[in-house]
Amino acid sequence: MLSNHLQNGIETARLVWSRLPSSEDGATAEIELPSQSRGGAGAESLDYEVIENYAYREEQAQRGKLWVSYCVVLKWLFSLLIGIGTGLAAVFINLAVENFSGWKYAATFSIIQHSYFVGFLVYILFNLGLVFTSVYIVTKFAPAAAGSGIPEIKGYLNGVDTPGILLFRTLIGKIFGSIGSVGGGLALGKEGPLVHTGACIASLLAQGGSKRYHLSSKWVRVFESDRDRRDLVTCGCAAGVAAAFRAPVGGVLFALEEVTSWWRSQLMWRVFFTSAVVAVVVRSAMNWCKSGKCGHFGSGGFIIWDISGGQEDYSFQELLPMAIIGVIGGLLGALFNQLTLFITSWRRKYLHKKGNRIKILEVCIISLVTSVISFGLPLLRRCSACPDSEMSPGIECPRPPGTDGNFVNFYCAKDREYNDLATIFFNTQDDAIRNLFSAKTFHEYSAQSLVIFLVMFYSLAVVTFGTAVPAGQFVPGIMIGSTYGRLVGMLVVKFYRKLNVEEGTYALLGAASFLGGSMRMTVSLCVIMVEITNNLKLLPLIMLVLLISKAVGDFFNKGLYEEQAQLRGIPLLESRPKLYMRNMTAKEASKNQKVVSFPRVVKVGNIVSVLRSNKHNGYPVVDQRQNGETLVIGLILRSHLLVLLQSKMDFQNSPFPCDMRGINRHNFSDFVKPVSSKGMSIEEIHLTGDELELYLDLAPFLNPSPYIVPEDMSLAKVYNLFRQLGLRHIFVVPRPSRIIGLITRKDLLIEESDHSATSELQSTSISASSSR
Amino acid sequence: MLSNHLQNGIETARLVWSRLPSSEDGATAEIELPSQSRGGAGAESLDYEVIENYAYREEQAQRGKLWVSYCVVLKWLFSLLIGIGTGLAAVFINLAVENFSGWKYAATFSIIQHSYFVGFLVYILFNLGLVFTSVYIVTKFAPAAAGSGIPEIKGYLNGVDTPGILLFRTLIGKIFGSIGSVGGGLALGKEGPLVHTGACIASLLAQGGSKRYHLSSKWVRVFESDRDRRDLVTCGCAAGVAAAFRAPVGGVLFALEEVTSWWRSQLMWRVFFTSAVVAVVVRSAMNWCKSGKCGHFGSGGFIIWDISGGQEDYSFQELLPMAIIGVIGGLLGALFNQLTLFITSWRRKYLHKKGNRIKILEVCIISLVTSVISFGLPLLRRCSACPDSEMSPGIECPRPPGTDGNFVNFYCAKDREYNDLATIFFNTQDDAIRNLFSAKTFHEYSAQSLVIFLVMFYSLAVVTFGTAVPAGQFVPGIMIGSTYGRLVGMLVVKFYRKLNVEEGTYALLGAASFLGGSMRMTVSLCVIMVEITNNLKLLPLIMLVLLISKAVGDFFNKGLYEEQAQLRGIPLLESRPKLYMRNMTAKEASKNQKVVSFPRVVKVGNIVSVLRSNKHNGYPVVDQRQNGETLVIGLILRSHLLVLLQSKMDFQNSPFPCDMRGINRHNFSDFVKPVSSKGMSIEEIHLTGDELELYLDLAPFLNPSPYIVPEDMSLAKVYNLFRQLGLRHIFVVPRPSRIIGLITRKDLLIEESDHSATSELQSTSISASSSR
Repeated sequence: MLSNHLQNGIETARLVWSRLPSSEDGATAEIELPSQSRGGAGAESLDYEVIENYAYREEQAQRGKLWVSYCVVLKWLFSLLIGIGTGLAAVFINLAVENFSGWKYAATFSIIQHSYFVGFLVYILFNLGLVFTSVYIVTKFAPAAAGSGIPEIKGYLNGVDTPGILLFRTLIGKIFGSIGSVGGGLALGKEGPLVHTGACIASLLAQGGSKRYHLSSKWVRVFESDRDRRDLVTCGCAAGVAAAFRAPVGGVLFALEEVTSWWRSQLMWRVFFTSAVVAVVVRSAMNWCKSGKCGHFGSGGFIIWDISGGQEDYSFQELLPMAIIGVIGGLLGALFNQLTLFITSWRRKYLHKKGNRIKILEVCIISLVTSVISFGLPLLRRCSACPDSEMSPGIECPRPPGTDGNFVNFYCAKDREYNDLATIFFNTQDDAIRNLFSAKTFHEYSAQSLVIFLVMFYSLAVVTFGTAVPAGQFVPGIMIGSTYGRLVGMLVVKFYRKLNVEEGTYALLGAASFLGGSMRMTVSLCVIMVEITNNLKLLPLIMLVLLISKAVGDFFNKGLYEEQAQLRGIPLLESRPKLYMRNMTAKEASKNQKVVSFPRVVKVGNIVSVLRSNKHNGYPVVDQRQNGETLVIGLILRSHLLVLLQSKMDFQNSPFPCDMRGINRHNFSDFVKPVSSKGMSIEEIHLTGDELELYLDLAPFLNPSPYIVPEDMSLAKVYNLFRQLGLRHIFVVPRPSRIIGLITRKDLLIEESDHSATSELQSTSISASSSR
Repeated sequence: MLSNHLQNGIETARLVWSRLPSSEDGATAEIELPSQSRGGAGAESLDYEVIENYAYREEQAQRGKLWVSYCVVLKWLFSLLIGIGTGLAAVFINLAVENFSGWKYAATFSIIQHSYFVGFLVYILFNLGLVFTSVYIVTKFAPAAAGSGIPEIKGYLNGVDTPGILLFRTLIGKIFGSIGSVGGGLALGKEGPLVHTGACIASLLAQGGSKRYHLSSKWVRVFESDRDRRDLVTCGCAAGVAAAFRAPVGGVLFALEEVTSWWRSQLMWRVFFTSAVVAVVVRSAMNWCKSGKCGHFGSGGFIIWDISGGQEDYSFQELLPMAIIGVIGGLLGALFNQLTLFITSWRRKYLHKKGNRIKILEVCIISLVTSVISFGLPLLRRCSACPDSEMSPGIECPRPPGTDGNFVNFYCAKDREYNDLATIFFNTQDDAIRNLFSAKTFHEYSAQSLVIFLVMFYSLAVVTFGTAVPAGQFVPGIMIGSTYGRLVGMLVVKFYRKLNVEEGTYALLGAASFLGGSMRMTVSLCVIMVEITNNLKLLPLIMLVLLISKAVGDFFNKGLYEEQAQLRGIPLLESRPKLYMRNMTAKEASKNQKVVSFPRVVKVGNIVSVLRSNKHNGYPVVDQRQNGETLVIGLILRSHLLVLLQSKMDFQNSPFPCDMRGINRHNFSDFVKPVSSKGMSIEEIHLTGDELELYLDLAPFLNPSPYIVPEDMSLAKVYNLFRQLGLRHIFVVPRPSRIIGLITRKDLLIEESDHSATSELQSTSISASSSR
């Protein structure tokens, strides 16, 4: 058999390749973004350095049934662990945030009984301290933890690996950073960061712990394929949403609709499992906390903003104001995306270049402004009298100072009064939203207060977005949306007096419309809104509003995450080819790139010079046959060449093909690049002059059959191939001169069932067709 | 430019092809199943006749923006119409079924006050009449309406078109047939048929009405692409589930998880919209019916089996019995699949061959047996005393005769007694399930009654499955499952006395477990169970049970729909390649098939003889150049050849390439085959001897760049390509001799953003990487 191998090499290469950490499909590339030291304010073009990362999926199949079962068990175990980990992280973050906020408001309220000025100072300092902690951790320790992280995770699952995004330090930075930023009262949420947290936990588990902190353990490192890692990260994302909103179904749909690029139906069930584990963990923790061991945490119940007791029905007249809410949401959402895009881009260009101090200073100033506004503005409002306790039973007004709830008595002259602006502005986010969503509380808010809050909070959210702290946009979005939603609701109550209208319902619809107008999510957002409010009956209304707001928003710009991904230089491959691609051929698309290929046996020196002279990540290998013909025998990757050059094991003296035993010298995991690292560079490899004169036979290490397309195939078709299979390289070849065979559906089914089953099939035709 | 075309032809062919009803990807083939007249009991091999159906997706793009907008609007309008249509169909079916059942039980109850025997006769005859109507309609009028239809729809969306499955007559047969079969008290449900109904409505809309009944209107026939049709059918499936269970989210997930093969995220929102429309329609109808205009319909409320007032919490000790329910569900579900497979296969082999009379007789006998058992068995049971009305407030026992509800007084000696077996057996399905799910009704059932019911109903469901009436398996599954679930629940109540256990919760879990064990659905089933019971809190428990039952079931056999699809000869391409495909090459897979190719200009007589001599559906076209070289210039389809032969317009005298203007003679819709028809056959085309001597230039009509794979690519990779892109043909070509170019992610992104955006991107690197 060996002589055979020597003769051709290709056959063996296929066999060997199937054992190598292989599989083109769905490999994640790494994009090195232009660092500021090199990039400058608009210098050269985007500096890609795509290093490929391979998997040994094929190899697994050869290790036997036991190994496969072990992997399956491990996958489910890991899903369980991701669920538990993300659930615990969410509980920890919630616990910390709600207790910090609780203490802050309790302290402030008890002090303002004596002096508003001292209370104000304490409030400002408390917020500043938390925010400073957050920004300090992020800038000094985990720069990748800034922002929501969803665009980066989306990019990762699309095939672009932003460095540092899934490290252990990022996880830690994200958790503690978001405690500080959310607890410090900034206009941002903890939901986006929780998605990132889930993804980090998943990725760290997948590589068996962090390498840098020597936590990596060998026996769990079976997930060296990119696809397995990506699957786990998908689970992590779903877990994050499930934990953030206590919405397991919403989490699955979010992962499905918003973040993943290659969805496999087999994965769905595992993702759902992870989400359910999160739900169980969070619920158990909350049950455990009910006894009061956790301070302010757990008082809200599992359903975050339960309005299941709200409006049961709706009439056709209400559809018009609801549509108006949708339009407002689309407009304000698109405006939000545009404003944040401008501000973030400006900030990156001029502000963040100047170093970490500016970043820290910026956040501290925003914290100060936020504190002043949220404390100061309610002071300027006049208090309203509490609703009649007989007319509205179950409402406690004003609430006792220092506790959570509605109807805050803040700077009021009389005892039985409350400050409607303080109820939403000078309150924790969760409570503020609960108040806005609350049913049976007509006329709680004056239109003036809501308008003031809307304008101020919208501005704060825009300014806060893009600072160097972990920041989610869900909760700010809900707050903005529910404010104008409630405003519309108030008008509806005024004009349609006869109807059974609840302002809280409109607030919910407003929240949905703003999120729809900004993030452009649809199904997942719908389900999340239903799950966080536990009101299935409003589903059609939420959908109506989302349909309108998304359509209106799409008229102006792209969704928030897409805009931000573009801004961060994460090139997402969309699911559909662009229109212009229909009129281009594959040849035209690849024209601007010179193809550099290797012969089968190549001088080491040549490899080094080729690798130095360009930045390509894959090279065709073209063999010269005895009769002078050439034959493309496969694709060799830069990263694999680097491994071979570094190990030096396969260098040979003769310029003729070797036998194939060489491959056994390598451990498969040699070829696997850890996630979130930059991989090797040719500059790091040092070879002596003698070594440069040696030869290397590439045949055992190449991918013998990458996907090929004929030169005049339309680029749209090529795009579909590339995108659907998650490829990294496609060979463009001349139009073939002959056809060896034609594969149809029949050929792919023919050996599926053995012969006994086939004869079974023959004899059992369907009765429908036979009896016609 | 024309001279250029004449020279090569390929360039133009690409341009022309892009205007032809084109696009290989995702075309739906048609499989002609062996009819019994030809097939016999195990004669020749499966008789495929795959006829391709093309789309003019590319063409749409060239018709201008206005046309595209018109299509988008029309797509949404059609989604709306599908929603409304399916919703109304569901309301109609429900209305009819519940009123027939209601009348039946009301009449029977009022008669048995006087004579049980007369009541028995009336009951039997009523059932028999309804069932006979159903089976008569189905066998005489719409044979494709038998069964649940889900396997066929699944096949259609996978690319296999069973004839007759989406016709207007099938729709009518399905609606009226399922009214008869469900109203007639057989052990089957209306949910599967509703999915089929939704799909039929969608398909009929897509082709602008039924052709046969002259309802087809031209102006809405824009959905001539297979993909658009398939998208609409997917919407229809989701609408069906949404209507059947009043579960919009469940409907979307069902379509996503169970029926579709190629899912596009753009579709999700439209599917969801359709589901929501259904929910609105059904809810409006039920509101309208609340005033009593609809008889027995609408009394149950929008949530079918509302147990939101049930068990709130669960303790760890309960997990063991719940796991046991999962195991039982897996075992009974797998057994159900196996038994139905055997019986259906036997029935098709021996019984249904004998014609429609046997089919009708069979169903009538089953109806008689069902009636006798459901009336007779409760007679043998002793009645129990009603629970103390003070201890259990809100329970009306016994219920007044002739009304719906729990605690049926049937053949009881005393007034304050009820017959527990009659409560579930001698009742409408919905009520029986509601009773089994009911909370706060401890000790309502004796274990003996439940065991009797379980055994009898299980047997009836197995026997009824596969008869010639529309039949769903959801409701029988829920009844079987909830019976043993409640049995386990009774044991738990007995052994864990201290816990707050509800038997109804266990019934729900049992239902989930049986459906999981039989249908092997996961996420969608979970969500459907939550939506039909409105109890989000039980989600983790349902998941646990489903995980176990699916795993146990998978150990024994495939899911119900897969088994049935296989039995019906619908070859589904699974989402993953088989293991053996890794060790096969593309060449090996296509070896058993001789490639028949055409030259560019071919004699008409040759075409006819080739088309007669084989049954291939695609032929490579190989051009001979001046220098003697050959070049593969594309793929021509049998169906297109048939259109060309029939029209005769393009026949020419010279054996040299024509110019390209010929294509303008054709209307694009000439090439579109209507769905669910057999298409043309070569035998139907009659050509004179002179015509056979003419020539035909194929270049304008071929697909110039089908996907190609090198001969030694592993079949697993080919499978992925085929399956992911929904192809019908792949060319296997020799390994290329040179590489023209290499396409990477960069090439597909490079012209995405214009230059201003690129410079924008350069200057805004991510802060994370820059500050490290």
